[in-house]
Amino acid sequence: MAAPAARRGLCGDPPGATPMMLPRIALTPGEPAGIGPDLCVMLAQQPMAGQLVAVADPQLLQRRAALLGLPLQITRFDPHTPATPNPPGSLPVLSVALAREEQCGRLDSANSGYVLETLRVATQQALDGHFQALVTGPVHKGVINEAGHPFTGHTEYLAQLCQSEAVMMLATEGLRVALATTHLPLSQVSAQITRERLERVIRTLVRDLSGSCGIARPRILVCGLNPHAGEDGHLGREEIEVIEPVLESLRAEGIRLTGPLPADTLFTQKYLRRADVVLAMYHDQGLPVLKHMGFGQAVNITLGLPVVRVSVDHGTALDLAGSGDANPGSLQQAVAMAIRMAENRILSIN
Amino acid sequence: MAAPAARRGLCGDPPGATPMMLPRIALTPGEPAGIGPDLCVMLAQQPMAGQLVAVADPQLLQRRAALLGLPLQITRFDPHTPATPNPPGSLPVLSVALAREEQCGRLDSANSGYVLETLRVATQQALDGHFQALVTGPVHKGVINEAGHPFTGHTEYLAQLCQSEAVMMLATEGLRVALATTHLPLSQVSAQITRERLERVIRTLVRDLSGSCGIARPRILVCGLNPHAGEDGHLGREEIEVIEPVLESLRAEGIRLTGPLPADTLFTQKYLRRADVVLAMYHDQGLPVLKHMGFGQAVNITLGLPVVRVSVDHGTALDLAGSGDANPGSLQQAVAMAIRMAENRILSIN
Repeated sequence: MAAPAARRGLCGDPPGATPMMLPRIALTPGEPAGIGPDLCVMLAQQPMAGQLVAVADPQLLQRRAALLGLPLQITRFDPHTPATPNPPGSLPVLSVALAREEQCGRLDSANSGYVLETLRVATQQALDGHFQALVTGPVHKGVINEAGHPFTGHTEYLAQLCQSEAVMMLATEGLRVALATTHLPLSQVSAQITRERLERVIRTLVRDLSGSCGIARPRILVCGLNPHAGEDGHLGREEIEVIEPVLESLRAEGIRLTGPLPADTLFTQKYLRRADVVLAMYHDQGLPVLKHMGFGQAVNITLGLPVVRVSVDHGTALDLAGSGDANPGSLQQAVAMAIRMAENRILSIN
Repeated sequence: MAAPAARRGLCGDPPGATPMMLPRIALTPGEPAGIGPDLCVMLAQQPMAGQLVAVADPQLLQRRAALLGLPLQITRFDPHTPATPNPPGSLPVLSVALAREEQCGRLDSANSGYVLETLRVATQQALDGHFQALVTGPVHKGVINEAGHPFTGHTEYLAQLCQSEAVMMLATEGLRVALATTHLPLSQVSAQITRERLERVIRTLVRDLSGSCGIARPRILVCGLNPHAGEDGHLGREEIEVIEPVLESLRAEGIRLTGPLPADTLFTQKYLRRADVVLAMYHDQGLPVLKHMGFGQAVNITLGLPVVRVSVDHGTALDLAGSGDANPGSLQQAVAMAIRMAENRILSIN
C-alpha cells in the first residue's frame, strides 16, 4: 500500500487540526490471569495524548503493579469531570469486581463473567457518551465458553451489545486487511458469503475508513473466495454468482473496488501499492500475511459500531503474566490508533 | 525457517559429492501464446549444470527467438546419447507439433491438446528413464477447460499420468509451504481433509524432502483447518477429530510434527525459524504469505511422483509474450532446483 503510515498513520491522522476535546479512552485489560493487566500497568507509566480509563478490578491492577515493581496510583473514574491526561504512574479506574482473586497463568472460569462485564460496562458508557473509544486487551475465548457464555470474539460480542453489524479490520505498517467473515468454521464460510453481507461490509468499510480513519474514497482490493478467484468458474462459482455482481453494482456508485482477485497473488506490491485496504473473504485468507508482516505491532479495529474499538493482535500469553516480559507494543499502537480515530470522529461530527 | 537457502538451498544441495551422471531435464514451455516460449529461449542462452531439452514445437521456439532477437540453434533430441551440457544459444528439442500457429497474446483452444501432449510426452519419457526431472512453464487452465479437457492444474494432471498421489509444495527463500488440498472450491475443502489424506501427504513430505531435497527428518509445522485451529472445538471440530489424531500417531513413529497451529500466527519467526516446511490445509491459507515473500522467485514442486517436477510460480502473462520483457527469474530457479533434486535422487538411489 502507498506507505499509509507515512501518509496518514495506520488509520489516518486528523488533517492538521487540534480537536476541541481530549479523547477519553476506556481500556479493558481482558483475561485477568493473562498479560492484559501487566500491559495496562506498563501503559499507565507513559504520557498519553488522551485520558485512559481502565474498566477493571482495581485490586487486580494493584497486585499486578506490585508484581512488576511499577508504581500505580489508582483514582476513581468520574464521568462528569472533563477529560485530563493521566499523570504517568496514575490510572483512573471504573471498577468491576473479580469473582475470585486471579492467579497469574491459571485460567479460572469463575472470572469469565467478570471479563464480559468489563466489556459490557465499557461499551455502555461509550454509548452513553462517556468514552470516545474502547481499547480491549486479550481475552481467552476457551475459558469464556467453558463457563457457559457463547462467545466467538470481541468483534461479534460488541456487535451484539451495540445491536450493530461489525466489520473486523487488522492494520499494521503498510497493510490493512478487513474480513467479510470472521470466526466461523471453514466449512460454513462459503454459505455466509452472500450479496447482502458483502454489500454491507463494503459500505461499512467505505463509511468508517473515511469517517474514523480520514481516508476519503478508499481503494479496496477484494479477494475471491476460491483458489485463483474461482478460475472463471472452474474452481467454484461464488465469484461469478455473488462477488462480481456486488462489486459491479457498487462500482456504479463510485466505490473504488478492484477484484475479485486471487488471494495468493493479491498480497504483492503490484496490487498493494495502489490500495488502502484488502477485503479478504475469511480469517485465514487475510490474516497470515498481515501477522507475518507485523506481528506484535498490528492492531485489530472494529468498524461499523457506534463505538470506536481497537484491540491488540495477540493472545493472553498466560506464561508471561506477572513476569515483566510482556511486550506492550501492540497495546501502545492500539491506544494511539484509538485516540486518532476518536479525534477523526470528533472532527467529522463537529 | 533456519535460513534454508544458506543451509541447503531452497530444496537442499547434495552433500558435497559430484553425481556420476549429468541430469537431463525436460522443459515444457506451456501455453504457446504466453511467455513460456520466451523464457525457454532466454534460458537457452545461459550455461547450465545439466542438459535442458525442450518438449515443444520447434517452429514455435524459432519464431519466438526471432521476435526476441536471440540466437537459437535447435537440435533434435536423441534419448540414446549421454547427456551433455547445451552450448549457450542451442537447445535440443523433442518435437510435438502445434495444431495451429500461435499468435502472441491470443489464446487459441485449438492448441490446448498440444499443451497437454507436451506434458504427456515429457512425463512418459521421464518415466522411461530418459529425463531425471521435468520443469514446466505456465499453462492457461481456462483455455484448456474451454477446449473440453478437464484440467485443474499441473499437479493433478501429472499425478493422473503417473497414477500416483501428488503433493504440491511451493518454495522461496526462507519458506517452503506444502498443501494438503490444492485446486478445490473452498466449500469442498473441509470434506477433503480426511485422516487418510493427511497421513499420505505427511508421509510423502517426509520421504521426498529427505530423498530429493536432502533434508533428513524434516520438521513440519501443521496449520489447523479452522480459524485459531478450531479454538478447542468452538470454531470447528476437524482439528480434534481428524488432524490431531493423525499427528499423534505419526509423532509416535518419530516424525517431527508441530501443530495443528492457528494459520494466522504460524507464519511468524517464532515458529518458522524452527521448521523446514509448513503444511497448510488449503491453497489460500498457505500461499499468500509465500508469494508475498517471494513472488517471481518462488518455485512450485510436485512431490510424491516417480518424476521430479518443478514449475514456475507465475502465469502466462499473455500481454508480455514476444516483448522481451518477461522475467526468467522463476524459470531459472525452477531449473536450478530440478537439477539439484535430480542430483539428490541419483545420489540417494546409487
